[in-house]
Amino acid sequence: MNVGSLFQPASIAVVGASRAPEKIGHQVLVNLRPFDGTIHPVNPSAEGEIFGREFVASVTEIDDDVDLALVAVPAPVVPDVIEECAAAGVDAAVIYAGGFAEAGPEGEDRQDRVVETATDHGMAVLGPNTSGFVIPGDGLCGSFASGVEEVPAGGTCVIAQSGGVAHSLAFQTLREGRGLSAMVGLGNRATVGFPEAIGHFDDHAATDAIVLHVEGTDRGRELLEASRAADTPVIAYKVGESDVGAFAESHTGALTGDHELYLAGFEQYGIPTVESTRELLDGAAVLGDGPLPAGPNVGVITAQAGPGIIIADRIQRSGGRLPELADATSEEIAGILPGITYAENPIDTGRPMPEFGDVVAAVAADDAVDVVLVNELYEDALGLPVDRMRSLVETVEKPIVFATDGPPADFEDDVAALEEMGIPVFHSPERAADVVSLLARYGALADGGRQEPNDERQEPSDDGTADSTGVNADV
Amino acid sequence: MNVGSLFQPASIAVVGASRAPEKIGHQVLVNLRPFDGTIHPVNPSAEGEIFGREFVASVTEIDDDVDLALVAVPAPVVPDVIEECAAAGVDAAVIYAGGFAEAGPEGEDRQDRVVETATDHGMAVLGPNTSGFVIPGDGLCGSFASGVEEVPAGGTCVIAQSGGVAHSLAFQTLREGRGLSAMVGLGNRATVGFPEAIGHFDDHAATDAIVLHVEGTDRGRELLEASRAADTPVIAYKVGESDVGAFAESHTGALTGDHELYLAGFEQYGIPTVESTRELLDGAAVLGDGPLPAGPNVGVITAQAGPGIIIADRIQRSGGRLPELADATSEEIAGILPGITYAENPIDTGRPMPEFGDVVAAVAADDAVDVVLVNELYEDALGLPVDRMRSLVETVEKPIVFATDGPPADFEDDVAALEEMGIPVFHSPERAADVVSLLARYGALADGGRQEPNDERQEPSDDGTADSTGVNADV
Repeated sequence: MNVGSLFQPASIAVVGASRAPEKIGHQVLVNLRPFDGTIHPVNPSAEGEIFGREFVASVTEIDDDVDLALVAVPAPVVPDVIEECAAAGVDAAVIYAGGFAEAGPEGEDRQDRVVETATDHGMAVLGPNTSGFVIPGDGLCGSFASGVEEVPAGGTCVIAQSGGVAHSLAFQTLREGRGLSAMVGLGNRATVGFPEAIGHFDDHAATDAIVLHVEGTDRGRELLEASRAADTPVIAYKVGESDVGAFAESHTGALTGDHELYLAGFEQYGIPTVESTRELLDGAAVLGDGPLPAGPNVGVITAQAGPGIIIADRIQRSGGRLPELADATSEEIAGILPGITYAENPIDTGRPMPEFGDVVAAVAADDAVDVVLVNELYEDALGLPVDRMRSLVETVEKPIVFATDGPPADFEDDVAALEEMGIPVFHSPERAADVVSLLARYGALADGGRQEPNDERQEPSDDGTADSTGVNADV
Repeated sequence: MNVGSLFQPASIAVVGASRAPEKIGHQVLVNLRPFDGTIHPVNPSAEGEIFGREFVASVTEIDDDVDLALVAVPAPVVPDVIEECAAAGVDAAVIYAGGFAEAGPEGEDRQDRVVETATDHGMAVLGPNTSGFVIPGDGLCGSFASGVEEVPAGGTCVIAQSGGVAHSLAFQTLREGRGLSAMVGLGNRATVGFPEAIGHFDDHAATDAIVLHVEGTDRGRELLEASRAADTPVIAYKVGESDVGAFAESHTGALTGDHELYLAGFEQYGIPTVESTRELLDGAAVLGDGPLPAGPNVGVITAQAGPGIIIADRIQRSGGRLPELADATSEEIAGILPGITYAENPIDTGRPMPEFGDVVAAVAADDAVDVVLVNELYEDALGLPVDRMRSLVETVEKPIVFATDGPPADFEDDVAALEEMGIPVFHSPERAADVVSLLARYGALADGGRQEPNDERQEPSDDGTADSTGVNADV
């Protein structure tokens, strides 16, 4: 199956291309405008041009090789369109419409026909029941959703079972100015599922971390194996802990019940999991940009005790450890700050002071510490210890995360300087603690968790092929 | 005890006033500049003027009545200063310095002297070991922290055990453009603790919600009773679930161990609790601005299934309920949207469409529903259902919360219009679900939880007087 034709096409056919702005077949063309390959609008009822390209009646009438068909037609017509695509030698397709495996026996039959055709011809089919995909760095927006073409290029690849969640994640990165390397809504996963998407984007130069949104899949073991095999860090967000039974089943078949099994599977295969879209994106940003943690041990340095207690509490509840520091480290800190407020880990300096950066450096250099979390509310007279951190990151290869806050106008230069040198900055104690806890779990799994699994019972069971994508294409 | 003199002073003495910018006694004067009452800089070693006000050697030499002394001197000098304040008839004081009950026997003796003097004279003493307080609407910044004077006036009153956490919360509201009615860091609570602060701000016209950050207090029952007695909605964030023993004890005495007891106490007294600073502020904003929920039943309407599943899952795990809708409601929705994707609660419309607002209105009108959560990713061609919501909020008196996201420039007008009519908007499914879960818990407790407690064993036990404030004033 040629997944490369799906995600790196040179020529695209839009089947169901339309002049009517409310149609998906119109919005897809709008979103494709920055694409610098060939585009063929396909619609048997249309004539003339749209956006300067000639309508054709069928993909079979296109003379060029078409790599990818974006199929924006109603569900009943889709199986025939996919057969035409196969006959025309199209390598890949995206099917936006809902009304397939998630929608009763008739829909299941439709999906079976699509899968059979695609399998026979080795076609990579994304969807049905998806909003599509976006590769910002290539100016390639294969989604009909408005606005998602504005998401900037970044390092995180989103692979979401739900197109709606994929778009929510994309807009969150847009809001934070981070961007994505790719965004994929898998939908009903006709032939392109988690394993194929993970495999492709593991080799994608622009991708430095892969995040998964998982509701449930019939290929759980392949998902876990592909995640473990990836050289790129992978984080997973498994939803559906509580009984969302009737609702989820209407979208995902037998979603409920396997949640714990999935979590155990991810742990066994060395893939850390999170519990929100924000943790997923924060974790990807930190794992993608910075040095990877070698273990679960967190050194915390705080200039204010209250947020430090919140942070220490939260890290310990979320899989991180606060190790004892080496005697030499404690002595060094006592030398830097005689009479320090609290010299165990977490280190509490009581207030910011000029020596604060030296204390951070002493903790970071301790072999017992795999990840460093610094909490310091901004004080104008001192600023953040930017210069000391700049020399520190040149000598210590460990993730360092800052939690700080203050009047944005006053400290944004210091924050930008820290982020520039690979030190991510978060603006609440919990948000910093959550991302550091994720780093700690990643480090723990890296340390000992990514061995061959020996307990096949941990593998998630089959649970149907239909799923939620957040999109029922109204075409 | 005259807490009014503390929080609404007409004249202030700054003891330890200083020309040296790195001194707290300087920063306090800087932060007081917008205050339109009288200010007296007090320092026996200084002469002349600072910021146009004449230095005096002692509070006893001030001719006017002084309501409030801001005491910015080192700990060893503080007990004598408090005695001078008492002798001079000063009603209230803030003590910034650390080195009291949190700092061993010598510090405990110092705090005992302060408490004795204050109690004898009915002085309201905030601190020691605090960064102070801020009342943005009065231009009154009784904190030495830089930047906190920029926090705008809003409706939420923060009462935090830790000055550091108080400032973190204040900066978060600044970042979100929300602001505060008041911010108080209690510190060691010499004579002003949770009960006094809650009582005062319950009567504060600018305050529409009170949020508490609690580590541990020796007056747990009074805290609970003051919270229950308040007419203003109160939400609590109790920290210290995991063993943060040695660190916490260095700041709060015997913090650990009582966490579950506190949570049970809050529940028994009808005070909902949260697990992060963000939930605390989001909850206060929604409870303070909008109608209060009458029960725990949430109606969810989503235009995308994937985020809807995340929301339904999260609400059910966090104390909310998704009730069955009345038959009449289901019939109405079926009439609005024949062939709707999923017509139970959560309602899933599959995609946004022009009738989406009517579906929301049908759910909101159902008597089974106490709180409404709407999830709809923005689509340019439709916008958000602003007009329909405007007519809805005139007829239905229930909290309505939106989760949406999209390109900020495209939809900020719609978002502003919703917020203008009292519908708060959040930009991730989890954040909206968390605030709605808080509303549901508040509604559940309002429904049946705020009766007289009948089990005194639920009362948190004494656990010391010292605590973390995040500040050890370096004066």
